Parts: sequence; structure tokens; C-alpha cells
Amino acid sequence: MSADAAYDFDLFVIGAGSGGVRAARMAAATGARVAVAEDRYLGGTCVNVGCVPKKLYSYAAHFHDSFDDAAGFGWRLASPATFDWPTLRDNKTSEIKRLNGIYQRMLEGAGVTLFNARARVVDPHTVTLTNADGEVSVSAEKILLATGGWPWAPEFPGSDLTLTSNQVFDLDSFPERFLVLGGGYIAVEFASIFNGLGSETHLIYRGDLFLKGFDQEVREFTCDEMAKKGVNLHFSANIARIERKEGALQVELTTGETLEVDAVLAATGRKANTSGLGIDVLGIELNSEGKLSVNERYETQIPSILALGDLIAGPELTPVALAEAMQLVDIHFHKKTPRPLDYDTIPTAVFCHPNIGTVGLSEEAAREKFSKIRVYRTDFRAMKHTLSGSQERMLMKLIVDDASDVVVGAHMVGEEAGELIQGIAIAVRAGLTKEDFDRTVGIHPTGAEEFVTMRTPARY
Amino acid sequence: MSADAAYDFDLFVIGAGSGGVRAARMAAATGARVAVAEDRYLGGTCVNVGCVPKKLYSYAAHFHDSFDDAAGFGWRLASPATFDWPTLRDNKTSEIKRLNGIYQRMLEGAGVTLFNARARVVDPHTVTLTNADGEVSVSAEKILLATGGWPWAPEFPGSDLTLTSNQVFDLDSFPERFLVLGGGYIAVEFASIFNGLGSETHLIYRGDLFLKGFDQEVREFTCDEMAKKGVNLHFSANIARIERKEGALQVELTTGETLEVDAVLAATGRKANTSGLGIDVLGIELNSEGKLSVNERYETQIPSILALGDLIAGPELTPVALAEAMQLVDIHFHKKTPRPLDYDTIPTAVFCHPNIGTVGLSEEAAREKFSKIRVYRTDFRAMKHTLSGSQERMLMKLIVDDASDVVVGAHMVGEEAGELIQGIAIAVRAGLTKEDFDRTVGIHPTGAEEFVTMRTPARY
Repeated sequence: MSADAAYDFDLFVIGAGSGGVRAARMAAATGARVAVAEDRYLGGTCVNVGCVPKKLYSYAAHFHDSFDDAAGFGWRLASPATFDWPTLRDNKTSEIKRLNGIYQRMLEGAGVTLFNARARVVDPHTVTLTNADGEVSVSAEKILLATGGWPWAPEFPGSDLTLTSNQVFDLDSFPERFLVLGGGYIAVEFASIFNGLGSETHLIYRGDLFLKGFDQEVREFTCDEMAKKGVNLHFSANIARIERKEGALQVELTTGETLEVDAVLAATGRKANTSGLGIDVLGIELNSEGKLSVNERYETQIPSILALGDLIAGPELTPVALAEAMQLVDIHFHKKTPRPLDYDTIPTAVFCHPNIGTVGLSEEAAREKFSKIRVYRTDFRAMKHTLSGSQERMLMKLIVDDASDVVVGAHMVGEEAGELIQGIAIAVRAGLTKEDFDRTVGIHPTGAEEFVTMRTPARY
Repeated sequence: MSADAAYDFDLFVIGAGSGGVRAARMAAATGARVAVAEDRYLGGTCVNVGCVPKKLYSYAAHFHDSFDDAAGFGWRLASPATFDWPTLRDNKTSEIKRLNGIYQRMLEGAGVTLFNARARVVDPHTVTLTNADGEVSVSAEKILLATGGWPWAPEFPGSDLTLTSNQVFDLDSFPERFLVLGGGYIAVEFASIFNGLGSETHLIYRGDLFLKGFDQEVREFTCDEMAKKGVNLHFSANIARIERKEGALQVELTTGETLEVDAVLAATGRKANTSGLGIDVLGIELNSEGKLSVNERYETQIPSILALGDLIAGPELTPVALAEAMQLVDIHFHKKTPRPLDYDTIPTAVFCHPNIGTVGLSEEAAREKFSKIRVYRTDFRAMKHTLSGSQERMLMKLIVDDASDVVVGAHMVGEEAGELIQGIAIAVRAGLTKEDFDRTVGIHPTGAEEFVTMRTPARY
């Protein structure tokens, strides 16, 4: 650390998740002196207990369908394939260790100083770092809070017997009977994963249908498809209590029903991970959602303390945190004018089975926003399933503002929906019209060609 | 047929392939009196010996990889899966019969008269129809030629022992050793299919690299990937002669090498299927490529005789024939002004393994057209293969005109490339810029997100 600088660092990042690492690396690339503190794992939720292991387990779960589908194409198995949980779990762990190493080398390669310690902000320019070796203080011109989110679970009798998404990837043994509590995207993803891996799977949700906020037809279609695949869906229900009985968990529902399972996942939401950060002492307040408020320069109430990612408002998505990190570095280190992200057209995928891909407005939101809309939709059995015999169907829909002809929403339920929607999202974010879609020639035979060949509105 | 009309029909379509059927149905929907003559199978090449069976066989071939990939995800097979060719072949045939029936019902439902007969044009408004029952003449105000293409194979000693793509789907027994002659998209697709189904597969091509006309890097990358999967690629080679010896085929190459195989597919090109149509007698001439020349109203030299699809210039693709059919009906039955298709930005997929998806200009074509281009590219092992152990890689590239920032080409080699490129194609056809791509948030974790996250040009 140069003795002539007013502070030890130009930027001190707390949390080495997607947003923190990206900001640290890009700031360091400008020549800034950057440090990161992390007391858990490099790569944050996404790499360790989120996107990456989730997607790997989703792949694993899809093979179940592949084995079934293959028969209609002439493939014969001498006996049904069997699944070995430790192989998946341990191969996942090895891959994540590899990624942790990549993150470490990326940070070191960028010249970022890495502290394996717990960080607490003590004044606008000072952080104390604590680990087994003791406590030290370092100063920085700017401090970036990037500690992300943390699973939140409700309390009820026996709620200590539930797992969160932080633990479920690493279960010692495979839960032959699995229960998910929750109705958000994490809940449907894990229900699909364990169902696909062979668990008897239950999803319990207090609302009347999961995936609130998504297009209603997408929600209903996904519900039908997940039920077809064998997930037991219990809506308008909650867990009253859980008791351990002879190695199993007895789950009593508010409906009076009792289920015996081997594991219960509480996928009931996530909260901003602000505890122990020390910001309350500095007078930085949380909003009603428990998040930090920032201006368009990502500054909290104290201008030298910045925040991004799951700590602030906006979709809790890795690419959003990355985009915010790049914005933040542009503003603070390249001195560029803030150029806010267009949060309305951020595409996203849910890796339930079948997958959901979505960008822009739901039919309901568009109907509220525009005086007249056109809804184009189709659902069909994918060509593969004419031979596989699977009854899985695919849904695609486009929502168009009638006055401007602009496509304001695109939604899909079906295989690889996230992959298909990415390109569509470029078109939707840019404000292209239905005529632009229509004038694009389809790629035959694909599922995606339906997005450019729907000609007649299903409704207005 | 109404006695008061000058002609028996308003439109007489020869050929019930993709273009012919679409034109017939859409013209009939306007109230026109429409007939179609077909002497082979409803749905044409696409449904019977093209897109549909090809894609089904490609799915079948992909399962081979799935079985291998599954082990890393914890799935165990007691013994390797085995493949039964008659199951695939016969299930395919049933599915195609189902589609043939759908085509028949669609035509009948639209009020189109269907003649199961061979048609020949005898004057600008008259067609003779021949089948086992005899010959009849019918008249029509307009005649649409829509007989598509037909495989073409070179002659050499033993060339009568080769198959074309019309026959290869229906082989009596599975060729344990398979040879494809040719370097176009049909050749690489069948090489991938039989390799995936378990044949020892050879591809022989006289040029130094297959897929002429595609982006050079895409060609090279595909070559490497196909070789990794075990396809034996023989470039700068041709077949000198084939002899049948003890049930096998001895194939002598121009390089001196001799291969023993069970089947040889000549995938050496297709020609416009004009023989026996009678158009030479009427003075309609073929161009140097053996195709019919039409104006923007799809009229041949005789204005009452129209043509579309593989009979005329342009990409030989089902969606192109469909788009032309809709244009043609717009012009001739809705009296709309012609609005030519933008053939430069027609996206397409090649279902070799891995798949290719492409839209717009190759790097080479863009370099010729623009004074300066930017090339963004990435290749990587897809997340799935971190656990599967497969060494398959994915290539993605964007070609940008530097002056305008417009994305003029997008190319991909990898799983589901056709599905991913469809949305990208909307953006490319509409002339969106690299900045439009950059401002779109990625969907994580997908492969497709690479298309919106490449920030540094690989070269100019």
C-alpha cells in the first residue's frame, strides 16, 4: 500500500459474489487500488449455492426424461437407469471448487487484494476485518457493499428441521421423498429437480398458484406441465408443523393433510444480507423491503458507501448485478454519466421442467398499461415428442401494443426456453414491432420459429 | 366446377410440397377455386424425405451423447444402450403418415380439389393429369409450378449402388458402416446422424473443407467437432468406383484408399424438379442453374404460369417457399404490391452435430462488403459438459459493420444452435446495432447469453 495515498485503497468491496467481483476487477483494470473481503466462498450465491449448482442439477434431472424419450427413437436399455446422488453432488462440488479457483486467479490477476475475513463498516472510509488471525482496520476512498442476499424461512413448530437452498445441494443422502415450501422460482426449480432425479416430490404454497408476477397463462401452463411430470402440487396450503419420526419427517399441513418425507426445503424467499455490516450504526437505513436505497450513482445515504446487486432494488439476478457493477465502475472510475439500466426488459429464465423464458410485460401488465393489446399464442407438442410419446407441451406467446405494433412481452414454457428467449429479448428491448418479427424468416424445423410465424391474434 | 367460369379453376398448383400447399390453402381462403396435383406424397420433400425425418433421426442420434453425458451426473446404465433401426424407421414412417393425413385434411378443409396424378402443362391455361385411371385435361386461369427439387448424383463406375436422401431414411437394415459423398448441409447432417446412431461413418468430399459458403471459422470449428465425435472426414477426395463384394460395398477413392462399407449416400446436390412438366414445349427456359426465372410477381416468361420454392433462385428452404407462397397469394389474390423478401438475412440451421445456426453475412462476406468490421467471438465448453466430461465446444460469433455498428452476421456452432439463432435473426434482420445487443441483459446461466456479453473484438 503506497504511503502517499490518503487511503489504503481506492475501492474496498465487501462480498466476492457476482457483482462484487466484477466491480473489483473492472475498477482494478482502471489502475485503482482495490481490495475485496469475503468470509465464505468466492463467486457468491450464483457460483456456490445458486445458478451454477442449480443448472447442473437441472441437467441431471433432465436425463430422466431423455431415457424415457429414447425408446421411441429405437434405443433400448437392458434395465432402467439408476441414479447415484453422491456422484452428482461430489462432481458438482469439484466443479464449484474449480470455479472458486478461477475467481481467485481472476482477482489476483487483476491486482485485487483479497482478504479472507468478515468485514464491517465502521465509518464512511474505514472497514474492520475479522478472521481467526484477529482484527485489522483498513481505509478506502469508496466502500462497495456487495453482500447479496440470504435465504429467509418462516418460523413454525419444527421449522428448524427445514433446509434452505444453501444446504440442499449437499445433502448426505438422497431424499426419496422431498417437499418444497414456497411458490417462487427457486421453489419450482427444486421441485422439478428432485422430481426429475426420482424423488416423490411435493410443493406446498400458501397462494392459489405459484410464480406470482409471471404471466398468468405461463403460470397455469407450467402448473399443468409440472403436474403431468408427477410433482404433487398443494396450493392454498402451508406447513403447520414438522416432527421427526423414526428417521422421517412428518409434515402436517394447514389443510389437515399429513405428509411423510425425507427432506423439507424452505424456498420461501431471500432477504438482503445486511446483518453485521455495521451500516445501521452509520445511519444507513433499509427500505420497507429490507434493501438499501441508492441513487443512480449506486451511492447510499453516505456517498462514499456504494451498494449493488441483491442489496438494492431490482431483479435479484446475476446479470443484473454484473450490469450494475459495470455501470458503477463506469460512473466512479471512468467518470461517465450514469445511464440507468432498463429494468423493464430484463429477460429471465426459470429452470423448472419445462423451462420458462420471459422478457417484458405479462399479458396482464400490458393490458393495464396499453389501451389495446394483441395476444399471439400457440401451444403444441414439440416434434421430438411425436416419437418419444411424451405428452409435454410447449407454450409461446407474444404481447403486442396494438397502437404502436411494438412487441412488449415474449413468454415461453418449454425445453431450453432461456436459450430461445435471449435473442428475442434483444428485439423486445430494442422496441421492435410485430411486423419486424413477421418479416423474419423461420428456421425450420425448430420450436423457436413459432415466434416469427404467429399471424392471428388469439385475443385482444 | 361452375359452368359459367372461363376456366375450371382459378389456380392450379402442381406439387403438394410446402410452397404448393401453402399457396393453395391461402388462395382458397380468398374464395378462389383451387386445385393441387400430386403424384407422390403430400407435404413434399420437407415432410417426407427432408426436414421432418432428418430432424427426427437427428434427435435419435443425439441420445447417444445423452447416455454418455449422463454418467457424470450420477446416472448408471447396467449395460450400454442398444439401438434398433427398425423401431426408429417405422415410428418415423407412422409419424409421416400422420402428417400426410393432416396435409390432406388441411387441403380438403380449405376447399382445395386434390388430384392424385402426374400433371403436365400443355398450354398457358391447361394441365393434363395422368394416373392409373387415364388422362384428363383441366383448365386454370393461373398455374403454379411447385414441384421443388430432386437429389442429383454424379455418375461413376458403380454409382447405381449409391442411395440418395430419398431412400436413406428407409433402409431395410442398419448400415454398420456408412459413407456419405458430398460437402453440403445434407452430407454433414447424415454423417452426424449415422455416426450418432452408431455407424462407422465416413464423409468424402472433393473440396478441401465442407460447407462452402458458410463462415470459414464455422466450417473449421464444425470440422474439428465432427472429427472429435468420430466422423471420418476425407477431404480433397472423391469416389473412383464402387463394387459390391460379399454383401458389402468396396469404395475406391481417387486418393487410392479403399473403404468397405454397407451403404453409400450420394448427398451431392439437388436440382430443380422440372422434368416432365412440359414447360420446355411452351418455351419456358431454365437458367444456367437449371432453375426457372420469375419476376417479383413470381411469374415465369408466361405470365399465367407462376413458380416458387426450390424451382426458382434463392435458398432451398421450407420457410422461404412458405414466405414466397404467402407473397404470391398476396400479389395475385389480394392484389397487393410485391414486397420482395430480404434473402440476405434468412436464418438457417444445419442439423449436424453439433448444430450450426447462422444469419446474415459470414466474416469473409462482411469483410468484402464493408471497409472495416469488428469480429466478436467466443468458444467454450458448455456448462453441461463440465460434468459430462464431453470435450464438445461451442462457438459464437458476431460480425459488426464498424461504421454503422450494425450487427450484419451472427453464427453459432453448438447444441440447439437453430433454436438460439431464431431470436438473434429478428435483431439482425431489423438492423439492430452491437450497442442494442450490449444493452440487453443476459439470461444466466445459458449459452445464449454470450451473444449479449461479448465486449472486446477478437479482430477487425
